[in-house]
Amino acid sequence: MKSATDLKAARIITLLTDFGLRDPYVGQMKGAILGIAPDVRVVDLTHDIAPQDVFEGAYVLKSSYRYFPRGTVHVAVVDPGVGTERKAIALRADGHYFVVPDNGIVSLITVDSPPAEVVELTNRKYFLSEISWTFHGRDIFSPVAAHIAGGVALRELGDALVTIEKLDLPRPRHERECVRGEVIHIDRFGNLITNIRDSDLVMIRTGKCEIRVAKQTIKGIKQSYGAASKKELLALIGSSGLLEVSVNLGDASATLKAGKGTLVEVIPR
Amino acid sequence: MKSATDLKAARIITLLTDFGLRDPYVGQMKGAILGIAPDVRVVDLTHDIAPQDVFEGAYVLKSSYRYFPRGTVHVAVVDPGVGTERKAIALRADGHYFVVPDNGIVSLITVDSPPAEVVELTNRKYFLSEISWTFHGRDIFSPVAAHIAGGVALRELGDALVTIEKLDLPRPRHERECVRGEVIHIDRFGNLITNIRDSDLVMIRTGKCEIRVAKQTIKGIKQSYGAASKKELLALIGSSGLLEVSVNLGDASATLKAGKGTLVEVIPR
Amino acid sequence: MKSATDLKAARIITLLTDFGLRDPYVGQMKGAILGIAPDVRVVDLTHDIAPQDVFEGAYVLKSSYRYFPRGTVHVAVVDPGVGTERKAIALRADGHYFVVPDNGIVSLITVDSPPAEVVELTNRKYFLSEISWTFHGRDIFSPVAAHIAGGVALRELGDALVTIEKLDLPRPRHERECVRGEVIHIDRFGNLITNIRDSDLVMIRTGKCEIRVAKQTIKGIKQSYGAASKKELLALIGSSGLLEVSVNLGDASATLKAGKGTLVEVIPR
Repeated sequence: MKSATDLKAARIITLLTDFGLRDPYVGQMKGAILGIAPDVRVVDLTHDIAPQDVFEGAYVLKSSYRYFPRGTVHVAVVDPGVGTERKAIALRADGHYFVVPDNGIVSLITVDSPPAEVVELTNRKYFLSEISWTFHGRDIFSPVAAHIAGGVALRELGDALVTIEKLDLPRPRHERECVRGEVIHIDRFGNLITNIRDSDLVMIRTGKCEIRVAKQTIKGIKQSYGAASKKELLALIGSSGLLEVSVNLGDASATLKAGKGTLVEVIPR
Repeated sequence: MKSATDLKAARIITLLTDFGLRDPYVGQMKGAILGIAPDVRVVDLTHDIAPQDVFEGAYVLKSSYRYFPRGTVHVAVVDPGVGTERKAIALRADGHYFVVPDNGIVSLITVDSPPAEVVELTNRKYFLSEISWTFHGRDIFSPVAAHIAGGVALRELGDALVTIEKLDLPRPRHERECVRGEVIHIDRFGNLITNIRDSDLVMIRTGKCEIRVAKQTIKGIKQSYGAASKKELLALIGSSGLLEVSVNLGDASATLKAGKGTLVEVIPR
Repeated sequence: MKSATDLKAARIITLLTDFGLRDPYVGQMKGAILGIAPDVRVVDLTHDIAPQDVFEGAYVLKSSYRYFPRGTVHVAVVDPGVGTERKAIALRADGHYFVVPDNGIVSLITVDSPPAEVVELTNRKYFLSEISWTFHGRDIFSPVAAHIAGGVALRELGDALVTIEKLDLPRPRHERECVRGEVIHIDRFGNLITNIRDSDLVMIRTGKCEIRVAKQTIKGIKQSYGAASKKELLALIGSSGLLEVSVNLGDASATLKAGKGTLVEVIPR
């Protein structure tokens, strides 16, 4: 019997991994899903997360999942702890399903949207029949996701869990009027994406501020890359709602020699 | 009311971008499409166009679109001008739909197949509800494509446009009997793809010519890579109908130290 | 008339190539398939096989295909011999269809699962109407796969073949109690995957052995990466059932300066 709180799973499964595409791993996951649920649609989010970088996986998942229809099942496997005591879990949060190793990869989502239900994956009936010790993406997470998309309720998959792992998020620090954050992601265009949110501060929303990064000072916040001159350094609110440092038609990361963890300060003016 | 010239959209959307796959951008576009039209099939053409290289995007789109069924909706986003005055457009040409920034990315197609209909995307009803200034791929182009695939007519999306932007194409020059072209694309195998067409010249179709490139001379046109000896330099008509310089089982770009823009001459013999 | 041994094709086509994703080649293949069979589901296995490395393609295909539903049609194009005398073939083995150049790319599969049926692709009715000499992936293999997925029997595609090409597999050598194998694949994490199978030897299954590789000696077989200390060198049976040399949370290939072909010895203790 389904409870009133059950959400019907969509027939869409997204995949996010750090497996790259030269190895058979991603193909095997897709096969494992389609072998169980041949009419499910499998969508690649990305397989290019830096190897074993759980935070990067968490950031990309958090930034992407909510654009999909409610009921989508998201499989996210960046799993340095495979074969250790770390749990395998499935959960429902913000109207979406997640099937993941319990290493914090969903914690950027659950910090804002506490899960309605979490289970530890222990019911081997929903795994592949042979389980390797090194590739739970194929043997556990993919088949479980296929079963959820096929209508199996979370509670069938194992016992409820009360707490899950959280990542130690870098949070911006507020000191008097200044906000100190850091670069958490560098995108393909060399844009520096910080952990400072649009909504953190009036001075950001109004643009009445200076941004200091890598010994440079940027005055104000622009609306878009194109609002700056060619090769000009600028700050803006990026498409994820986070403060971003960019070079118009250039590469801010290379220009500033800045990387993950680089300090970014916002100061009123 | 649909006009008699309307083409029924296929339930297929292709994506071509320069976003790469390490960032959340492609996943967000797919989500935006499936959130609106959950049963549409999303097909990746490529996300590895060199950052902001509109010409490369135009070349790949031109080379690929016509293999898809009529009515396919192609989203192509290489968009250095995002957030500036450049328009967002949708058009129908050669029986296909295109949803793109107006920066010439479809102009290699429309030069041969003038569009039956072009509109500027101004009707915000078909955008995502929140529009960023930096990511129209997700906020405008993807949702509009989903609506076209779902049956919305182009004229619902905005006002008709008479002219669109064109790329400044490198065209081969004919000087007496000689043709001077250039390398426009280097593929993964190091093949040098030029802007000289099969149909440009009898001497190419008959193979009665010499090709001069990077101080080397190649006699005649071969039918395939395998018609040359191992590591032999050869010229052939590639799968896009363009003259190509290759090394059989090798890398012509590395061997000849040739790149985009390298001069290629064809001379009768 | 269908024979009793015919297997109904699934509406799933997988693609494995060495084409990468910067060029139009993969998009053209997908278009060619969907142009013929618009409701077939096209799944990317990988397009990142090293250029013209037939063995790597064979290894990835062999490792992946059996996770898909029976009747799936697998297109695998690593094709250094395109345009030469090498045949184009389709076959059915182990309940799956394969559409490939006849260069051994399926031979790691057929050595274990002899094909029930093999045909040479000669019936041009099932090709694209224009055939290039350099891109049979688009012009022959993709359309033929679409027709198979659409219900065309193999025998319609051409004449039966009795023998197909085989790759010269590196097989481990057994010398007295010692087994000498080699590295056949390095995955994205730097794991060294060897040609020595789990089932080859009791000493491997029981872990009562030493592994010698690149002047290092590893004692015993661990169950998973996480069973070793951080940065510790270990040996385990990987997810394909093959002996693997790894560094927990590190890169064994870089640490040991080992690559494809590196000798790996297993010795009892």
